[in-house]
Amino acid sequence: MEIDSKRVIELLTAADDVLILTHKNPDGDTLGCAVALWHVLTAMGKRAAVINGQPIPKRYDLLFEGLEMPEFEPKFIVAVDVADNKLLGSKLDALYGDKVDLCIDHHATNVNYAKETFLNGDDCAAALTLYRIFAEMGAEITPAVANALYTGISTDTGCFRYSSVTSEAYRVAADLIDCGADNARINVAMFETKPFAYYDMLSEVLSGMRTFCDGRVIVFKVTNEMFEKTGATPDDCDAIAAMSRQFEGALCGITMKEKANGGFKFSLRTHEPLNAAELCAEFGGGGHMRAAGCDADAGKEEEVLSKLVGLIEEELK
Amino acid sequence: MEIDSKRVIELLTAADDVLILTHKNPDGDTLGCAVALWHVLTAMGKRAAVINGQPIPKRYDLLFEGLEMPEFEPKFIVAVDVADNKLLGSKLDALYGDKVDLCIDHHATNVNYAKETFLNGDDCAAALTLYRIFAEMGAEITPAVANALYTGISTDTGCFRYSSVTSEAYRVAADLIDCGADNARINVAMFETKPFAYYDMLSEVLSGMRTFCDGRVIVFKVTNEMFEKTGATPDDCDAIAAMSRQFEGALCGITMKEKANGGFKFSLRTHEPLNAAELCAEFGGGGHMRAAGCDADAGKEEEVLSKLVGLIEEELK
Repeated sequence: MEIDSKRVIELLTAADDVLILTHKNPDGDTLGCAVALWHVLTAMGKRAAVINGQPIPKRYDLLFEGLEMPEFEPKFIVAVDVADNKLLGSKLDALYGDKVDLCIDHHATNVNYAKETFLNGDDCAAALTLYRIFAEMGAEITPAVANALYTGISTDTGCFRYSSVTSEAYRVAADLIDCGADNARINVAMFETKPFAYYDMLSEVLSGMRTFCDGRVIVFKVTNEMFEKTGATPDDCDAIAAMSRQFEGALCGITMKEKANGGFKFSLRTHEPLNAAELCAEFGGGGHMRAAGCDADAGKEEEVLSKLVGLIEEELK
Repeated sequence: MEIDSKRVIELLTAADDVLILTHKNPDGDTLGCAVALWHVLTAMGKRAAVINGQPIPKRYDLLFEGLEMPEFEPKFIVAVDVADNKLLGSKLDALYGDKVDLCIDHHATNVNYAKETFLNGDDCAAALTLYRIFAEMGAEITPAVANALYTGISTDTGCFRYSSVTSEAYRVAADLIDCGADNARINVAMFETKPFAYYDMLSEVLSGMRTFCDGRVIVFKVTNEMFEKTGATPDDCDAIAAMSRQFEGALCGITMKEKANGGFKFSLRTHEPLNAAELCAEFGGGGHMRAAGCDADAGKEEEVLSKLVGLIEEELK
């Protein structure tokens, strides 16, 4: 059920022993929202804990500095920036997927799995959606909350670069900086720090890249063999995926990333007029208009690629 | 002579037939300021023209769409974002270097070559400095002015990423978007569009990179041979230079770019505690704390590199 901000505030105010769930392959938006909410709930005298089904990439350590998560039997479960219970990952989905009391999200593709959902599909980041809730609640934006929300907005917009960024997002960023967000440090950690292995992987990917539709579609393929050779992590690949639509004249970048089981995760990045979420929906995936993903079973990746390129060719006609 | 904003407004109000000078290797800030000033002066009924001593990279075409520069004998000469008359390039320097009536700039290293200089060395972009002047003048921020100023701020901050970005810069960006700046289009053109040749050059550069001081200094070398092989332009290299300080643990990235005459242009990008402007000043160069440059004569580039690395080693002790 979709709810309004007033109801979110009622729920958060009444809740205690709050478990905050984040999505798999955690990014700065899901983690930033979770940590910001943790601080606000904790400041209200409640017990709260943030969990994720996977190890959290090191660059997000700054969000968790000095935090200790209490242990308790959850009485209220919130998911932030999680569009589908499947995105919790199999472990957390099995435990909590059908027990989420409240979901706060900005994915227009949200499948409405939670008991109550607060959704703003126009927001460039769930952290912006959450900021408005905090503002309406009158919650104090401490430097820690500001850091977490700034991280969410900054990372989900390629540092204020994407078409989703409105003047409101810039103004909220300004307010967060005035509340103590350390934008310089956050942006260095999120955007200006990449492992040497990332660059090795980038070299590999560039040398194997393919183009389709007269250079309007760029395809990067990342195999497990390349992961082993370079030592890069799947997380390193996300930044490489963003690069796939930056070629002059390209309208779609496709990054095919092999998973441990031999299947492939496809990440699409598009420019107008291509809708990444709609393209991925054809293969059971989803996401945003300009960035979305879908999966291909082991051995089926080239078939999925070929169908996808066919769809894009149709669209561009 | 350094002047205040009131005096700048007096000068601009009294001026006519205004020639607006930009720096060589033109970037979004010098061009954005020049175009914004052109629009404001033209709207005041004055004749104005923007010039640059070099061809302007294609991605800035959007700033000049539909503009026609009148021809006239200049009665007032303004330089924007130009810290030193030498940075006008030899042609414009010879013609106008000692005749600049007004310089509006944000480089703390400005050499005070103009008759009157309005400088704010703390600003992340000269476009921010100029925006404040416009605000004080009550100049109308049309969509064209907003696009030009947004381009200046966005490009000089790596799209709001660098440590120089204040909450004011975010707020000004928000205001410019509300005045009609097309942030999505600008950022795609400035950051999300790179020629195929850029990626070929990137592959070359990565495979030849060197590290010093236990990985705290990264060195990229770009030779004329590499330019020929890949078809990349010096402008393509600027984006690669920014990448040089993004290696985990690196505090300084040095990009050595060969010039047509066989000399090298060094571009330094640093993290705390290294001051790029101070390091480059040792070799007759200058710039900002986190991004600066200097030159090396043909055949001397490895000697300059070795001295530079020695200085950095000392600093880091």
